Amino acid sequence: MSVDRDRLIELRREFHRHPEPAWREFWTTARIVEELETIGVDELHVGREALAGERLAVPDDDELEPWMQRAREAGADPDVLGALSGGWTGAVAVLERGEGPTVGLRVDIDGLPREEATDDEHHPAREGFRSETGAMHACGHDAHITIGLGVIEAIKRSDFSGTLKIFFQPAEETIGGGRPMAESGHLDDVGYLFALHIGLDYPTGEIVCGIDDFLAVTQFYTTFEGEPGHAGARPEAGRNAVQAMVTAVSNLYGIERHSEGPSRINAGRVGGGTATNIIPEEAFIHGEARGATTAIRDHVFERAGAVFEGAAISHDCEFDVTVEGEAPSAESDAELVEIIREAARSHPDVERATRRGEIGGSEDATFLMQRVQNNGGLATYLAVGTDHPGGHHTATFDVDEESLGLAVDVVSDAVERVAVSQP
Amino acid sequence: MSVDRDRLIELRREFHRHPEPAWREFWTTARIVEELETIGVDELHVGREALAGERLAVPDDDELEPWMQRAREAGADPDVLGALSGGWTGAVAVLERGEGPTVGLRVDIDGLPREEATDDEHHPAREGFRSETGAMHACGHDAHITIGLGVIEAIKRSDFSGTLKIFFQPAEETIGGGRPMAESGHLDDVGYLFALHIGLDYPTGEIVCGIDDFLAVTQFYTTFEGEPGHAGARPEAGRNAVQAMVTAVSNLYGIERHSEGPSRINAGRVGGGTATNIIPEEAFIHGEARGATTAIRDHVFERAGAVFEGAAISHDCEFDVTVEGEAPSAESDAELVEIIREAARSHPDVERATRRGEIGGSEDATFLMQRVQNNGGLATYLAVGTDHPGGHHTATFDVDEESLGLAVDVVSDAVERVAVSQP
Amino acid sequence: MSVDRDRLIELRREFHRHPEPAWREFWTTARIVEELETIGVDELHVGREALAGERLAVPDDDELEPWMQRAREAGADPDVLGALSGGWTGAVAVLERGEGPTVGLRVDIDGLPREEATDDEHHPAREGFRSETGAMHACGHDAHITIGLGVIEAIKRSDFSGTLKIFFQPAEETIGGGRPMAESGHLDDVGYLFALHIGLDYPTGEIVCGIDDFLAVTQFYTTFEGEPGHAGARPEAGRNAVQAMVTAVSNLYGIERHSEGPSRINAGRVGGGTATNIIPEEAFIHGEARGATTAIRDHVFERAGAVFEGAAISHDCEFDVTVEGEAPSAESDAELVEIIREAARSHPDVERATRRGEIGGSEDATFLMQRVQNNGGLATYLAVGTDHPGGHHTATFDVDEESLGLAVDVVSDAVERVAVSQP
Amino acid sequence: MSVDRDRLIELRREFHRHPEPAWREFWTTARIVEELETIGVDELHVGREALAGERLAVPDDDELEPWMQRAREAGADPDVLGALSGGWTGAVAVLERGEGPTVGLRVDIDGLPREEATDDEHHPAREGFRSETGAMHACGHDAHITIGLGVIEAIKRSDFSGTLKIFFQPAEETIGGGRPMAESGHLDDVGYLFALHIGLDYPTGEIVCGIDDFLAVTQFYTTFEGEPGHAGARPEAGRNAVQAMVTAVSNLYGIERHSEGPSRINAGRVGGGTATNIIPEEAFIHGEARGATTAIRDHVFERAGAVFEGAAISHDCEFDVTVEGEAPSAESDAELVEIIREAARSHPDVERATRRGEIGGSEDATFLMQRVQNNGGLATYLAVGTDHPGGHHTATFDVDEESLGLAVDVVSDAVERVAVSQP
Repeated sequence: MSVDRDRLIELRREFHRHPEPAWREFWTTARIVEELETIGVDELHVGREALAGERLAVPDDDELEPWMQRAREAGADPDVLGALSGGWTGAVAVLERGEGPTVGLRVDIDGLPREEATDDEHHPAREGFRSETGAMHACGHDAHITIGLGVIEAIKRSDFSGTLKIFFQPAEETIGGGRPMAESGHLDDVGYLFALHIGLDYPTGEIVCGIDDFLAVTQFYTTFEGEPGHAGARPEAGRNAVQAMVTAVSNLYGIERHSEGPSRINAGRVGGGTATNIIPEEAFIHGEARGATTAIRDHVFERAGAVFEGAAISHDCEFDVTVEGEAPSAESDAELVEIIREAARSHPDVERATRRGEIGGSEDATFLMQRVQNNGGLATYLAVGTDHPGGHHTATFDVDEESLGLAVDVVSDAVERVAVSQP
Repeated sequence: MSVDRDRLIELRREFHRHPEPAWREFWTTARIVEELETIGVDELHVGREALAGERLAVPDDDELEPWMQRAREAGADPDVLGALSGGWTGAVAVLERGEGPTVGLRVDIDGLPREEATDDEHHPAREGFRSETGAMHACGHDAHITIGLGVIEAIKRSDFSGTLKIFFQPAEETIGGGRPMAESGHLDDVGYLFALHIGLDYPTGEIVCGIDDFLAVTQFYTTFEGEPGHAGARPEAGRNAVQAMVTAVSNLYGIERHSEGPSRINAGRVGGGTATNIIPEEAFIHGEARGATTAIRDHVFERAGAVFEGAAISHDCEFDVTVEGEAPSAESDAELVEIIREAARSHPDVERATRRGEIGGSEDATFLMQRVQNNGGLATYLAVGTDHPGGHHTATFDVDEESLGLAVDVVSDAVERVAVSQP
Repeated sequence: MSVDRDRLIELRREFHRHPEPAWREFWTTARIVEELETIGVDELHVGREALAGERLAVPDDDELEPWMQRAREAGADPDVLGALSGGWTGAVAVLERGEGPTVGLRVDIDGLPREEATDDEHHPAREGFRSETGAMHACGHDAHITIGLGVIEAIKRSDFSGTLKIFFQPAEETIGGGRPMAESGHLDDVGYLFALHIGLDYPTGEIVCGIDDFLAVTQFYTTFEGEPGHAGARPEAGRNAVQAMVTAVSNLYGIERHSEGPSRINAGRVGGGTATNIIPEEAFIHGEARGATTAIRDHVFERAGAVFEGAAISHDCEFDVTVEGEAPSAESDAELVEIIREAARSHPDVERATRRGEIGGSEDATFLMQRVQNNGGLATYLAVGTDHPGGHHTATFDVDEESLGLAVDVVSDAVERVAVSQP
Repeated sequence: MSVDRDRLIELRREFHRHPEPAWREFWTTARIVEELETIGVDELHVGREALAGERLAVPDDDELEPWMQRAREAGADPDVLGALSGGWTGAVAVLERGEGPTVGLRVDIDGLPREEATDDEHHPAREGFRSETGAMHACGHDAHITIGLGVIEAIKRSDFSGTLKIFFQPAEETIGGGRPMAESGHLDDVGYLFALHIGLDYPTGEIVCGIDDFLAVTQFYTTFEGEPGHAGARPEAGRNAVQAMVTAVSNLYGIERHSEGPSRINAGRVGGGTATNIIPEEAFIHGEARGATTAIRDHVFERAGAVFEGAAISHDCEFDVTVEGEAPSAESDAELVEIIREAARSHPDVERATRRGEIGGSEDATFLMQRVQNNGGLATYLAVGTDHPGGHHTATFDVDEESLGLAVDVVSDAVERVAVSQP
């Protein structure tokens, strides 16, 4: 039943060479489709057919086109690329294996817009599978894709009875792909959903069976617009957008704590103005609000809205807020945590299988988990430990390729166990 | 023609012993009336008859009553006090002396709500005419009243042909009495107006014939109201009025400079909150906006309004702005400056008579000056130097009593010169 | 074994009539001593003998003297008052009953500096035992004193074998009395400590056996000192203490959240400046920092220190920080929680006995709990429910007097159970 | 004596096609040198020989090299370019014409880093002499160079007796070139200095003979450096550079007004941070302080220094301030103003010659003026009106070429008048 580990490593390295940022996963999706067709699946929903509803923060055509062009040149299937036009990336694969539960696995597929390390201490550089796109798989989504493909192959060869759906989700890094995939309809018959992440500071050999501390998050991009003016000659003629922005940032961080659980606010990137002698006409805040629950996050973001408005009024500016991404909070279901734990504990290479653990951040897999749970199903989010030399999102992030096979084994075992326990 | 200098000193000391703050000049007005009746004038308008229109920042009855009571006990004429009820203080005296121009002199009569020095180095303490009211004549208005009474007496004895009006204005320190007196109608036939101030860091023997740098001013009292909450148990339940106030103060000082002249903003007194563990429900800013012109002041105060609104919105609070006092800017007319200068230069005790000088602040005499100037008349504001040991508004302020007689001489000489030059 | 419930109510009403704020509990301590002498105890440590080390935020003699005077006039024993001079209030009573464990009970005795409601809907007003001091027992410490006296009387009549110590702690509301009493030495042989609070929004008949969410707290009073200046004439001559304060408040609320648990910051009371036209010379912040652990609180307060310094430097002001009160976090020990729970469940009037509950704030009983726990002993903090019409610290707070006897019963039962289980 | 007006227009258009920003005036300087050699001068100091002391904000070699390369390709004399290497641009030309005063004329030569308009309504676009470099002569320095060359030619043909020096100053837009040229020694024997600017919203035919409201200015670039951290997982681990920057901006704008004259502060360009979920590690403020006098500017900039330090301390960040450019204030000497005025009034095309006018900003010609005045010489800064369709520094700025000849006439006439009046 086990899949070829060398093949998994080969696949992961191929995806690692072609990282594409959110909504630009053209080559990646085409390559996934190609591989799925080789494996053989019963249904395949690509691009527009895998997503529904509003998509946030999709780049405009000028930004998409060079990536589409590059995918074409790198050998992606033009027919598949056609289906992805407009940044409709991602896919849902369905394997129908008779009577039984519908089990889902969600893996995310996008890279990060950052440079990869070049020195020989960085394993992908040394072994020659460093990024060729300028972006980087610095969060292990290359491994996630590989695990998704491995699981579908393993289940195909297994005695599993039921339906397996693999959700190859785009745009996780911008928390943009989760909701459109959750609303696609493909989740609606899923009774059991697994989502996974590699690494998260857990070592190779450790499986954390249920992540629970997801913070609900809203990412926003707020602009302030005033009026320029010569700072020396006519300061009173300007309407100062930087003063508005600065007032807003100051008050954003001043949003009060919440007694019902952790909350967060960050003005992660700000800017404004053009020259030392011009009253700044424009300014922006690119930030995020989080909360232990979706309600706390909503409270913080509502307070942020008042802060933006107040700051704009204070300096006679206009303002505009765009939500760029969002994800709810979520909890892993104990029943599914136990199934993963049994699968993990029965695997010879798993040294430690803990029930609960922390991610310390946000994830839009929570949209898919919430969808399944709202329909009465169960969901869990597991972490597959891997020794990683650099931290997530850094130039030297890498995964221990030993953990690829281990992850495929544990997840496909858990999928089978679901079918056995819930026939 | 000269008035008795000992009498002037006696009068000044008597007024110095009975300082009364803005709108509480009960004893003071009654004593002025008594003195005017002794001198003998043709018309006397007291209290309500000397003022018109809205009065700002009048204390409520609870605050007025003890001062009324004190005035009664200190021997003020009960009939006059009756006319002042409700804080309608001040008086206008008219001396009609045949054909000729109508000349006005404005003097202010209120004291300051501060303690007076007690040590023997302070002349009023040493000589036994220190304040008996708890307030203090720390800006020389006791001298101004005395000069006003002296001028009317001097003109009565002179060959002056025309009409002289003395405006005993209340509530200058809160810039509250100027406008109601300007709107009383008594200014409307005044063709030439003198206003004066003693001291201003000019020494005894110096006369500055035209003050020109009056800043227009608006004093405001702004309150923010939120909702209390336990800072430990439920911080999110409060709406923090101190955060609103703090945001407003920060942005008030950030109001931009104006290219057309000096502007000022000050949050001179602020406060809020009740206890360390309560989210503050209330806060206030007691402040002022100024400008070299009334237009600049208005621009600054309009910007302040946006700042208050923005701060309140930022922290989900209500706010309220009360204008407590205001005065326009003004310029002294050259023609009248010259007349004062001639009078000054012809006086043996005047060592220096400069055309133009600075006050570095605001004054609501500007309302009266503006009224006269708008009607086509002329106005000037003169400074009568006096050696003063402590600064204006401090506990050790005092005037050199030599300057009382000198001021009466110069001003009454100028009044006569107006009549001669403008028959 | 049960004490007379009418007597408890009578006592509570007597203490209710004489509320005294922190460090001013002169009448209260004297009356406690009088009552303890009536009951008969083996040791009695009063004032200086009940406290040690530095006391924070003790009022100066001018503030203490009127309260001392009032206590004298209200009939307090002059000898006891002598021992309390300088604000050394509070007492420790010891009952020695042979072999066995040393068990402590801590009750706090101070009132709040606030007016009490006067209308007939307020039970103390209607029944004629409203405050006679201008302060108010608005947090139930009158009930706590009564329960402490009731427990010592009940234990005296019981078969308890061991030592009982009752800690009548002053100055809880300012979190000032806990540390000096913890450092007095009287806690050092206590193996089991109970502390209690009435109310906390739990109804009559409910006992919460272990409060666990104490936030460590530091109360601070920070002053900024600049230089005054005339806001119109010479704004650049001033050094603006209000701007420094405002910068500090803004950045205090901007201190980041902590990932290891809740934190709080509040600038609960602020002020500064003297007049609209003076650049403010002085300003203050009266506030507090809290944390789920003492380490988190320390982190927040350390950050606050940098904020004060930075604000002062920004506006060329001096600053000074005084710690006015502090308390660590604490946890209730499970073993003692169980003992309380058994006592509560065996009482016919207890309808609900929960193991764990929340206070949502801070308490300096934690100093005493920590002292006992650091010595290897056990401590718990229990809440005795009482129907209270108004919230804690409000003018209409009151307790259901039924809960007095119930509390005495449950606590003295628990004291006996300790002796039985830990002979 | 008059120079060929068509030739002036031709030259101006040639310079217009080759705008080069500050310290990159390679082609420009080489072309000026070429033209001066054609005219024939007695001394020519180029690059390093025209400047001395520290130069501020010189771009590094990576930025300079493409401009040097471009100049080479556009036909600049390689020998001259060699002398300019390292961004040592500008030149001083000396014409010695026997006995008489040494008269200087300062013209600035740099362009602005902005695009020029392309549409046909823009005269340079329509006539085919639009910028070929990507930068733009959007402030008329192309005209200034032309006038400088025209004056030297006119004086050469005239009866002028004395010495004429033309200062072709680089880097005025960054207020960087003034000081090094002032310190070059070439100013030290200049007894009379003219500096000029075209436009400034004055129409063709108007000459303003003395600009007087130069604001002293300091341009600064301040950076804050903290520590990054994950905004969701470990907010307390970061040290937030954006919060430091925001605190600084807020307090910069809050620097108090100065009673001795106008002051300005502007945070014209700010930014910081990298991603929504990262506590920002770095931030910057690019801004300026100004004052009516150098002392006022220094006061404001000193206050800014405290603001930076306080903000950094408040948020536990490091900070660094670089002065990028500066210029003192200056006044035009009445004697020289009169000489210009006489020359202007005697010119048939001058419709209006006013003594005094405003520039409403800053200029580093003030360094040269100050140098001359400190040596006992006289200086004035005149504005030569020109109808300009777009405002200074905008994409559609242009000059009325009629004013070129007029400027050459008036200035060379004034140079001659100096020689006559001060033989």
